[in-house]
Amino acid sequence: MTTQLHAIIPAGGAGTRLWPLSRRSRPKFLLDLTGSGRSLLQATVDRLGPRAASITIVAGGAHREAVLEQLPEFGDGPEGREDRHLVTEPSGRDSMPAIGLATYLVRERHGEDAVVGSFAADHVVARPDLFLEALDAAVGAATEGYVTTIGIRPTEPSTAYGYIEVGEPLPHGPGGSGASGAPSGGSAPSGAPASPGAHVVTSFVEKPDAATAARYVSDGYLWNAGMFVMRAGVLAGHLRRLRPDLDRGLSAIAQAWDGPARDEVLDRVWPTLTRIAIDHALAEPVAAEGGVAVAPAPADLGWTDLGDFAALDLLDTDPGQAVRVDAPGTVVRDGGSGQQVVLVGVEDLVVVTTPDAVLVTRPGAAQDVKRAVDALTRAGREDLL
Amino acid sequence: MTTQLHAIIPAGGAGTRLWPLSRRSRPKFLLDLTGSGRSLLQATVDRLGPRAASITIVAGGAHREAVLEQLPEFGDGPEGREDRHLVTEPSGRDSMPAIGLATYLVRERHGEDAVVGSFAADHVVARPDLFLEALDAAVGAATEGYVTTIGIRPTEPSTAYGYIEVGEPLPHGPGGSGASGAPSGGSAPSGAPASPGAHVVTSFVEKPDAATAARYVSDGYLWNAGMFVMRAGVLAGHLRRLRPDLDRGLSAIAQAWDGPARDEVLDRVWPTLTRIAIDHALAEPVAAEGGVAVAPAPADLGWTDLGDFAALDLLDTDPGQAVRVDAPGTVVRDGGSGQQVVLVGVEDLVVVTTPDAVLVTRPGAAQDVKRAVDALTRAGREDLL
Repeated sequence: MTTQLHAIIPAGGAGTRLWPLSRRSRPKFLLDLTGSGRSLLQATVDRLGPRAASITIVAGGAHREAVLEQLPEFGDGPEGREDRHLVTEPSGRDSMPAIGLATYLVRERHGEDAVVGSFAADHVVARPDLFLEALDAAVGAATEGYVTTIGIRPTEPSTAYGYIEVGEPLPHGPGGSGASGAPSGGSAPSGAPASPGAHVVTSFVEKPDAATAARYVSDGYLWNAGMFVMRAGVLAGHLRRLRPDLDRGLSAIAQAWDGPARDEVLDRVWPTLTRIAIDHALAEPVAAEGGVAVAPAPADLGWTDLGDFAALDLLDTDPGQAVRVDAPGTVVRDGGSGQQVVLVGVEDLVVVTTPDAVLVTRPGAAQDVKRAVDALTRAGREDLL
Repeated sequence: MTTQLHAIIPAGGAGTRLWPLSRRSRPKFLLDLTGSGRSLLQATVDRLGPRAASITIVAGGAHREAVLEQLPEFGDGPEGREDRHLVTEPSGRDSMPAIGLATYLVRERHGEDAVVGSFAADHVVARPDLFLEALDAAVGAATEGYVTTIGIRPTEPSTAYGYIEVGEPLPHGPGGSGASGAPSGGSAPSGAPASPGAHVVTSFVEKPDAATAARYVSDGYLWNAGMFVMRAGVLAGHLRRLRPDLDRGLSAIAQAWDGPARDEVLDRVWPTLTRIAIDHALAEPVAAEGGVAVAPAPADLGWTDLGDFAALDLLDTDPGQAVRVDAPGTVVRDGGSGQQVVLVGVEDLVVVTTPDAVLVTRPGAAQDVKRAVDALTRAGREDLL
């Protein structure tokens, strides 16, 4: 695999689902939640490094300084690198505008055939080596013209993730797709599969209930990890067709980017862009046309989106620290308070301590943590948000 | 009621059942658990003050300084009062030796007919005025020769307390008891009841199960609050008969107390005294002889022994401070950590935070908190004990 990847990392998030560990000013991606010594964002950059011709982080202005503190190579200082970019969004408009802008910037600099890939800033991958294998396959399918996702082989019938319905193996060679529409000629050698193991995506499906999840798993569906790899020109072509307003806006901003009008155009156009996720704007409609491929990653990739406190094993970084008396199924996370936690006669609890807060909840109640944060917001507790 | 009372407050306790609020060095009685601004010990002294000719606190050496800090009138300093005494036990030998020593000291100073009363240092009484009414009745029965307890009218069929089986109304006048043995002439005016409402105690019964507790309540049993009022000579007479070794030892110490041999005698004799509670040494056997009376206190006295975290309402001093989302029946106690506690999707929990510890338990699991403290002890966490 010689094709290089221009990686894009949209780094957003309100920081409420993992409150009190995450805060508005310290969203999940800035935290070292796995105890590795690197924040999730740093780990994402580390993971992509071996394949990345460039990396662009798209973050909100409120997090710019914190990102640069963790990753000075993305700044303008002495440690700054030419192939590392930090794009500041004027406001959060969901993932399609963020990924779109970074893609259009890559296209301006590297042309239509440059392959871009977007990867969440706050996911965990236990085996970066397996990730790179799947990534190489995805880049192969992307060069053939597909919008390509990396699908994760499920370890369990989780109801916390969307799923990918997998179709036929990808046809060999450039332009060989039987699907109408999207895929078009690329640079893969004729006759050899540029993306061994990749398949056409039949559809993306929403988070299922438990019974449906079990059926999905037995039918070979994959977890949708929200990673998308494609040629810059392919993404732009789809947008031109499906979301012409977005295409026009992003083109205008990208063309002005390296000139004196950047700020003026950005401030004028950005607020007009449709607030929409890349899944809805691009992946789902293109999949319906047969233009999306999936490169499967094995279950032992160890991927999780750390969406809530249900990610027990990862969050309970020091199970021996708490004292438990008749306290099965309990997870304790010290977010810097240093307090001795003692659990007596309770079960299936998550206890998170920080210097200024203590959360006691259940693994299944994570969505409601947001309601508690809303209550703190209403109470004017800005100090805790 | 002109008879004055010499109050005795045994102040012991290992400080484990209310851990992490209470500690070895800060047992329950030193804490302001009700948010009144006064520790339980201070509140006990306050409550007894209006009737107390003297007050004697019996505490361990480890708590002497802390007691004097809270109650300087018990010390030798400029704020010290003649009618306030702090007796330091060389070691904890349960309540009978502690109360016995204080009683024998009162007897040395004020004679056989002086009325003493012992009251726990760490109980709560919401209505001190009602307590004094019951106390006056108890002192009346005590002057007639009875070992007299104050029994609390139950507010519920609690399984956390022992109960008092109530017999006939007390016979009027001095020496008029039909019971064999104990009661003997006192100073009450002949023909008038010295203790209106007081009854003979048939027996003391242990903490019951739920069904038995319900029967006790419907049968008019009272809660045993462990308060005992009697003439000093009456207590000594019972001990001489029932526990002659204790009588001899306490007499020896009391006689040496105000002389040069106090420390020598105390250090030599104290360790030989039987380790026994006043209930078993005195109240139960004397009740079996008909020599115990009870003065009932109404349920709205608001008494509790604060024995564990089941005392919900009192401990949750600021229910509005915690944020609760679907968290019924939860009790939160800030023991000085200042953290915002958030409870989401949990029920029937007790959460206690201190600067160095967080306890999460259930109201019914309080006995097991001791096991957790034992585990910390084994782990060498002296800093948390």
